[in-house]
Amino acid sequence: MEKRIYNLSAGPAILPEEVLLEAQKDLYSYKGSGMSVMEMSHRGKIFDGIIKDADADLRKLLGINEDYSILFLQGGATLQFSMVPLNLMPPNNKADYIVTGAWAEKAAKEAKRVGAVNVAATTKSDNYARIPKQAEMKLDPEASYVHFTSNNTIFGTQFRTEPETGNVPLVCDASSDFLHKKIDMNKYSLIYAGAQKNIGPSGVTVVVIKKDLLARSSDSLHTYMNYKIHADNETMYNTPTTFGIYIAGLVFKWLLNMGGLDEMYKRNLDKAKVLYDVIDGSDGYYKGTTAVEDRSLMNVTYRLPNEQLEEKFVKEASAKGFSGLKGHRSVGGIRASIYNAFPKAGVEALTEFMSEFKKNN
Amino acid sequence: MEKRIYNLSAGPAILPEEVLLEAQKDLYSYKGSGMSVMEMSHRGKIFDGIIKDADADLRKLLGINEDYSILFLQGGATLQFSMVPLNLMPPNNKADYIVTGAWAEKAAKEAKRVGAVNVAATTKSDNYARIPKQAEMKLDPEASYVHFTSNNTIFGTQFRTEPETGNVPLVCDASSDFLHKKIDMNKYSLIYAGAQKNIGPSGVTVVVIKKDLLARSSDSLHTYMNYKIHADNETMYNTPTTFGIYIAGLVFKWLLNMGGLDEMYKRNLDKAKVLYDVIDGSDGYYKGTTAVEDRSLMNVTYRLPNEQLEEKFVKEASAKGFSGLKGHRSVGGIRASIYNAFPKAGVEALTEFMSEFKKNN
Repeated sequence: MEKRIYNLSAGPAILPEEVLLEAQKDLYSYKGSGMSVMEMSHRGKIFDGIIKDADADLRKLLGINEDYSILFLQGGATLQFSMVPLNLMPPNNKADYIVTGAWAEKAAKEAKRVGAVNVAATTKSDNYARIPKQAEMKLDPEASYVHFTSNNTIFGTQFRTEPETGNVPLVCDASSDFLHKKIDMNKYSLIYAGAQKNIGPSGVTVVVIKKDLLARSSDSLHTYMNYKIHADNETMYNTPTTFGIYIAGLVFKWLLNMGGLDEMYKRNLDKAKVLYDVIDGSDGYYKGTTAVEDRSLMNVTYRLPNEQLEEKFVKEASAKGFSGLKGHRSVGGIRASIYNAFPKAGVEALTEFMSEFKKNN
Repeated sequence: MEKRIYNLSAGPAILPEEVLLEAQKDLYSYKGSGMSVMEMSHRGKIFDGIIKDADADLRKLLGINEDYSILFLQGGATLQFSMVPLNLMPPNNKADYIVTGAWAEKAAKEAKRVGAVNVAATTKSDNYARIPKQAEMKLDPEASYVHFTSNNTIFGTQFRTEPETGNVPLVCDASSDFLHKKIDMNKYSLIYAGAQKNIGPSGVTVVVIKKDLLARSSDSLHTYMNYKIHADNETMYNTPTTFGIYIAGLVFKWLLNMGGLDEMYKRNLDKAKVLYDVIDGSDGYYKGTTAVEDRSLMNVTYRLPNEQLEEKFVKEASAKGFSGLKGHRSVGGIRASIYNAFPKAGVEALTEFMSEFKKNN
């Protein structure tokens, strides 16, 4: 078995070893079919089974009922930033955006091309170091929807609970924490997530959309941009990213075999605690960058006493097999992304390295 | 080594065995890096090398100079049907479309959402069984561009030479015959191609665009839809389909190692001849569905004396390991897709089966 590194990259990110090994085994000829999954017709029997399994397994994991369609699209969250307002804004031509970081800003920017955007809350003046409280949100009861970003990869914050939006449909960009815990799907009208953190390889975007929203999609929309067309064709209007969907399906099965999302959440809480405890117990050598109550379980962001030490930290960590620790280029510092597939042993090894580094520097 | 079938699927389609074996070897840990390509940051050093290699190798294969940008996008040809008019239509707000099949119809349909579409030529009244002659084309010298579909997967026709459009930029959907031969890039202002025939797995769309056209992309376009933004960021505005780009890069190297596109074209001519010769020598038992001079080298379409025999043919062929021979559901008949990666031995085996089947039926 070849050696693996500790991949703390913010995304594309680490995948479960079991998933990689199974994909490797079947890459040349999928389960005796004589073809790679990459070579199969998306309308053939075998791939039909693969995508139906992925749909069914995702429904099991999140408790998604038949009131929702599951779509496996392309274009990443970036295309969703546009598709959401293009499809959902029309009725009242205005939407609420809760702005908690760079990705939420980008989502709001595309929405402004379509209609009126009300920034219901923003923590920009706090450098996005915290999540706004419910009481801060100036929600418009006439809004077509409320959009929020459940986890902020760059700033290391995460919503603990969903914003309360009454009868206004809730739309969530869950790109960086999808499937990290069980959520109450009834609260959501639409969730989208780029695959490349907790789902699979980049090139797949999962969209879970309540079917009653599909009536909003106008026939005048460009075809690829129209949720209703994708839903009516069960993702198969055009050729989807077949190999990416296959890998996502393997990840869903890995989660089910582990015991599902409650077990995954327990492990995520546990992993994050190990790391935050070392930060908090470092007498200020390592400093978390966010409000404690809004800390992300996925992206742990912190600083060292100065930038020279941060640079040294990243370099030495990299030499020891910890990859991807450099904070986002827009904020600097350190970021350890510990998504679902990142093992606890890796977090423990990282904390050992952190203690050692502190002692020596 | 596991057994492989003869995969004659129209797409997603067969990939070179060498590419699959290399991808399999490196799937768990790419060249000793300790990570799968699927897990790598798209902004990291290793993936940067992969995508730069893919860009450089594609330039070598087609002789693409620095006047052009190469983009690896998502959304398939379907999204390009919209992106092309959204970006390129504005100057004169009208474009010419040469309609030679179902895909060209779809491209024209999206363009109509943006501006005026002049159907410069169509062979619909001939059931798309032929390619229009230059003299039939009613081209508008004021058009923003001329769009054509170089190969028609469903109807089995293919342009031998590009339409002459004078000073009007030529735009080509080459999804199903990209890289099947060397073309004169100077004739093209934009070529796009979904990967899933001759390039790699579905989920990647190659766009080669002349840089002088990028000035047409308005700032008001939705970000993902804007060619200029993708070009300015060298495909990296958002996370591209990293694994698909990696596989495409391996396919480009496979083509270079073979001797490039002139050699590939020779092999494609040779393979197609073997198959068309059997059709033409069958005393009318097998009937080609298209004008002889417009026959596709990629998708060989033909009929048997009746539909019952066609059904039997597909069934018996499938039992002998020939997969994907059923014609498109909209036209019926038989379709043998013999893309770049399909081996001559497979074509020969198929023709043997065809002779046998004719004798017995």
